[in-house]
Amino acid sequence: MTSRADSPAIDRTVLRPLGQRPIGRIPVQDVRPSVDGGARPTKSVVGETFDVTATVFREGHDAVNATVVLTDPDGSEQQVPMTLRSAGLDHWSAQVSADRTGTWHYRVEGWSDPYGTWHHDATIKVEAGVDVELMLEEGARVLERARDEVPRDAAQTTLLTDAVTALRDSSRPSGARLAAGTGEEVHSLLTAYPLRDMVSPGPELTWWVERPLALYGAWYEIFPRSEGATQDPDTGLWTSGTFATAAQRLPAIAGMGFDVVYLTPVHPIGRTNRKGRNNTLETDEHDPGSPYAIGAAEGGHDALHPELGDFDDFDAFVERARAEGLDVALDLALQAAPDHPWATSHQELFTTRADGSIAYAENPPKKYQDIYPLNFDNDPPGAYAEMRRVVQVWIDHGVTIFRVDNPHTKPVEFWQWLIADVAVDHPEVIWLAEAFTRPAMMHTLGKVGFQQSYTYYAWRNEAWELREYVTELAGESAAYMRPSFWPTTHDILTPYMQFGGPTAFTLRAALAATLVPTYGIYAGHEHCENVARPGAQEQIDNEKYELKDRRWDLDAPGADRSDEPAERRHRVDLAPYLTKLNRIRREHPSLHWLRNITFHACDDESFLAFSKRGGGADDGSASDTVIVIANLDPHALRESTVHLNMPALGLSWGDGFIAQDLITGEQWHWGEHVFVRLGIGTEPVHIVHVRRF
Amino acid sequence: MTSRADSPAIDRTVLRPLGQRPIGRIPVQDVRPSVDGGARPTKSVVGETFDVTATVFREGHDAVNATVVLTDPDGSEQQVPMTLRSAGLDHWSAQVSADRTGTWHYRVEGWSDPYGTWHHDATIKVEAGVDVELMLEEGARVLERARDEVPRDAAQTTLLTDAVTALRDSSRPSGARLAAGTGEEVHSLLTAYPLRDMVSPGPELTWWVERPLALYGAWYEIFPRSEGATQDPDTGLWTSGTFATAAQRLPAIAGMGFDVVYLTPVHPIGRTNRKGRNNTLETDEHDPGSPYAIGAAEGGHDALHPELGDFDDFDAFVERARAEGLDVALDLALQAAPDHPWATSHQELFTTRADGSIAYAENPPKKYQDIYPLNFDNDPPGAYAEMRRVVQVWIDHGVTIFRVDNPHTKPVEFWQWLIADVAVDHPEVIWLAEAFTRPAMMHTLGKVGFQQSYTYYAWRNEAWELREYVTELAGESAAYMRPSFWPTTHDILTPYMQFGGPTAFTLRAALAATLVPTYGIYAGHEHCENVARPGAQEQIDNEKYELKDRRWDLDAPGADRSDEPAERRHRVDLAPYLTKLNRIRREHPSLHWLRNITFHACDDESFLAFSKRGGGADDGSASDTVIVIANLDPHALRESTVHLNMPALGLSWGDGFIAQDLITGEQWHWGEHVFVRLGIGTEPVHIVHVRRF
Repeated sequence: MTSRADSPAIDRTVLRPLGQRPIGRIPVQDVRPSVDGGARPTKSVVGETFDVTATVFREGHDAVNATVVLTDPDGSEQQVPMTLRSAGLDHWSAQVSADRTGTWHYRVEGWSDPYGTWHHDATIKVEAGVDVELMLEEGARVLERARDEVPRDAAQTTLLTDAVTALRDSSRPSGARLAAGTGEEVHSLLTAYPLRDMVSPGPELTWWVERPLALYGAWYEIFPRSEGATQDPDTGLWTSGTFATAAQRLPAIAGMGFDVVYLTPVHPIGRTNRKGRNNTLETDEHDPGSPYAIGAAEGGHDALHPELGDFDDFDAFVERARAEGLDVALDLALQAAPDHPWATSHQELFTTRADGSIAYAENPPKKYQDIYPLNFDNDPPGAYAEMRRVVQVWIDHGVTIFRVDNPHTKPVEFWQWLIADVAVDHPEVIWLAEAFTRPAMMHTLGKVGFQQSYTYYAWRNEAWELREYVTELAGESAAYMRPSFWPTTHDILTPYMQFGGPTAFTLRAALAATLVPTYGIYAGHEHCENVARPGAQEQIDNEKYELKDRRWDLDAPGADRSDEPAERRHRVDLAPYLTKLNRIRREHPSLHWLRNITFHACDDESFLAFSKRGGGADDGSASDTVIVIANLDPHALRESTVHLNMPALGLSWGDGFIAQDLITGEQWHWGEHVFVRLGIGTEPVHIVHVRRF
Repeated sequence: MTSRADSPAIDRTVLRPLGQRPIGRIPVQDVRPSVDGGARPTKSVVGETFDVTATVFREGHDAVNATVVLTDPDGSEQQVPMTLRSAGLDHWSAQVSADRTGTWHYRVEGWSDPYGTWHHDATIKVEAGVDVELMLEEGARVLERARDEVPRDAAQTTLLTDAVTALRDSSRPSGARLAAGTGEEVHSLLTAYPLRDMVSPGPELTWWVERPLALYGAWYEIFPRSEGATQDPDTGLWTSGTFATAAQRLPAIAGMGFDVVYLTPVHPIGRTNRKGRNNTLETDEHDPGSPYAIGAAEGGHDALHPELGDFDDFDAFVERARAEGLDVALDLALQAAPDHPWATSHQELFTTRADGSIAYAENPPKKYQDIYPLNFDNDPPGAYAEMRRVVQVWIDHGVTIFRVDNPHTKPVEFWQWLIADVAVDHPEVIWLAEAFTRPAMMHTLGKVGFQQSYTYYAWRNEAWELREYVTELAGESAAYMRPSFWPTTHDILTPYMQFGGPTAFTLRAALAATLVPTYGIYAGHEHCENVARPGAQEQIDNEKYELKDRRWDLDAPGADRSDEPAERRHRVDLAPYLTKLNRIRREHPSLHWLRNITFHACDDESFLAFSKRGGGADDGSASDTVIVIANLDPHALRESTVHLNMPALGLSWGDGFIAQDLITGEQWHWGEHVFVRLGIGTEPVHIVHVRRF
């Protein structure tokens, strides 16, 4: 019997009319992760570990075994032995990771294990005195094959030759001869470099390995025009900030520990039907308009708003950000104001009505006359090429991340193409989908290429909701959709945040920063800006329609706020807390990963407890265990007992450990059952590092 | 905008290195059923209805729609409109069925629905007085396209032309003009024969449509040699029955309403190391041996045991069975006795040990020296061809079903090839897998072609176990694995049957006959043969190793049993009950289907209640509702309230109905909450037909 996956002499064309693909000598079924049945890549970032699992079984009683074969972007293969996790379900798994970016592949190979078969049978039969000489001779033959048919170094060859000799040495007791073939050294060698018969490959699956920032990063959102905006004390009128003034904010953003600065659109803003403050239809000449109403005489998506500066100013901003260790994310909002140049030069980018007019955005019977949605179907190649051109402008100016506004209003196949086309030359570019919509679209955008997605986090405020949602996000979908958690955005201010006070802002930042590896903070979170426009779940005086007062220097110790209104004189400053969160994230590698979360039981249903451990290859995460316990009720001090799943912490039931609170520095001795008191008047969250005695 | 699935002018080769297959203009995701991601066929039988489901969605706010396209074996296509089942999940479904056997295909097409978009927007905007003329003109244009771009008959064309004219008739009120485009007739026409833009096909999936017996049938198992066997009154020695005597039993089997007579192996039986009664190693010359120890000087798998008769006798048996409306199922036990001709003529079919001997079957350290297992790997093409030859012998002699013994001890790829190869010329042949093993193997054998599988039914005796198991079997796995339920077999006599008395035999037959469409009875069930060999879960005096007394005439009314031992004089006869079960099955089309089961809540946990309704196309099952309520405790009379899921019965909450017991003929008035008393001393099971007042 020789190693083979298939019997070419058998005419398998009979399978075709029945829609049967050959099953393989050793069936390999249900390989996971497998995105859309293998039609799309599995994703991970460099160093991220995840389990490849499969159902592998065979006929009869002979030993079966399985290997994951990883193929790196250069085509080099690496075999990872799999472990049988459930004998009853024939369920095998192996933990894998990739050490560099690029397009990898993986497949599971099932195989017949002649050494395993012999080891099992010989151990029983030699002990029982059945077929002793025969079994020992068959062992010698298996080890000869193992020596000769698999590449071996000299030491391995000698080890196996010695075992063969000993198995055949009839001068020795049979038990000793058997032991020569079943001993630890031979067994380990045959596990690491096995003799594999009937090797049967499962599907070859594509695996896209991206840079760490695709999974892990802290984002900070600003409207550049507000940063450094100044108000005329006489007229009360504001003057826009610029890239130059906004750049002055970058050291503070980096100083708080953020990794990405995200800019809302920076393009010329339409004048036709411009929206006024608080989304009103009346404007005066001083209203700056929404940066999402893109395009005016000064240019469109490839241009800069003149008040912000020119491309030199933009480049300087990007350079400063880089110097501070920040990636720059730019909003990509593919829609046009009526005075966008496209409305004259590229009318095919819009929908023309029966009366010849260009269609406004609508939610019948309402019309949004400041916006023309794009139409990608009149001339798809032209539309795709124009969008690609626009994106390249910003890549050429140092943008490495696109935060895509409402991707779910453009064809999914457009994004699939665009992201792939950009990746050819710029695989470092990261795309974040702002698809606040139904799950099917959200998941599919991840499958077709978006590295990250905004999530329902803002609307998951109960402990059971967060457990359920994060369990889903850290499960199978982690292979294609990476979540980004934002407590608020310029468009989202949930009732929880409106009415939860500073505790809510503290708590939701801490949870976002620890539940998942990527989270984002919208400028102003530091000051708990929580007043909503009546009837809306967004801030009053939404920054989309006006400039915000971003005089951060008023937070400085000793700053003179005596002339300021009361709410600014007494404002909260959570910047130190955010700084702590980001420092904790950087120092604790277990917080860099998504799939490594375990939830723990709490007696009080307002409490959420989870831990993170492992998740990365060789990054220290295997020995870094962090527990987070939060009281989600922002209005009360509460107590609960938390019941820790000790093995998930790398501990044994009954162990004790030192729990060091990474926010306050306090230390306790904890065990399986922990009593905690959290909430208003004290810390709302424990972020605890587990240390052995 | 024209109808298109894709934009060929866009270079999608950029997707390839990223392992991305094009997503399609309108994404079609997660189409089900899809067996192994489309690598294997979905199965149904002629007339069986099932749901095709998919996630179909699109960008933006325009209307999306979906169609299932069925392609029959000749390549003719049929469109089935899908229905949106869950707007939040973008989940669409359609019920489909096939009207003839063969290899069909199905695919889901997502598409943009211009009429749906216009209908939605126009209804709102015309009522609100927004863009009235424009909306009506756009409606006229959509209906012109719907008229001209889709094949229409004259009446349909006129209907749409009239609507277009009315929409443009500015002399009429706008509401009437709108109604001309949105009215019932136009809407129905556009639902049945829609105007479809951007038609985007999902994967083309293969669908294997088989004859009804592949899903629905009542089986009866006999050892032919016992049927008509006679005992010498002086010596006590038995003389084997023959095909001729066994044929005399066929009218009774058919008379009880069975559809299939299943014969254990009929080949010459090995003499070397022959097993004696009760699986002992000692035999005397009169022991007939196990028919599963196949092969002797008289021949192997292609030969008949001389004591049963010759091929003329076999043919006569098959002919008689056919005349009685019975299909003949033959055991296919691919293993050999040591004196099988293969052991000399085809040594490559076996495993040769290091000492040159042929390997016996083993479960180390035990050896089974009456059996050589086959080895398919020494010469796969030769082994496959020889097995194919054997199978053809029996097909040529009228066997239409193979009951495969232990298929899980042979390579899965062998079965895949064998079943496919036979299907080329004999698509009517049905294969039943006797794979009492772990789920992965059992399911995969179904996926690669076995039409039916034995199941864990015999070991599922609690109500919760049956609910859970049948829910699984009737769910996604119903697309590839069809269960066969057997209360006992010649190898299986569970403790429940050993100790449950006639109630257990009654109950388990009734449940097997109604829970799933295919069930089987092993001869002797009528007499509640329930004495086990000590330490085994099989009968004492197992029919595998000796002839059984099958003098069925002793059951006849007025038969003289005075000379018989007490257990035979007083034996139970469940034949009339089995006859009733099979009559009920035939008369009630809802019992012909697998996927149409609903379980109902019972207060007493020993009670199982379920109903069947629908499941077939145009067979009356849609209006045939059967409820089964059973007390699973064979030792007690128990009472319970059963809470019926009224919509699952085709009724409304609060409705009453006439419940006619199909076993006893009794009638009651039932409603949502039913009080029942069942068990020992009365009927253990209600099988109830639901009739409206």
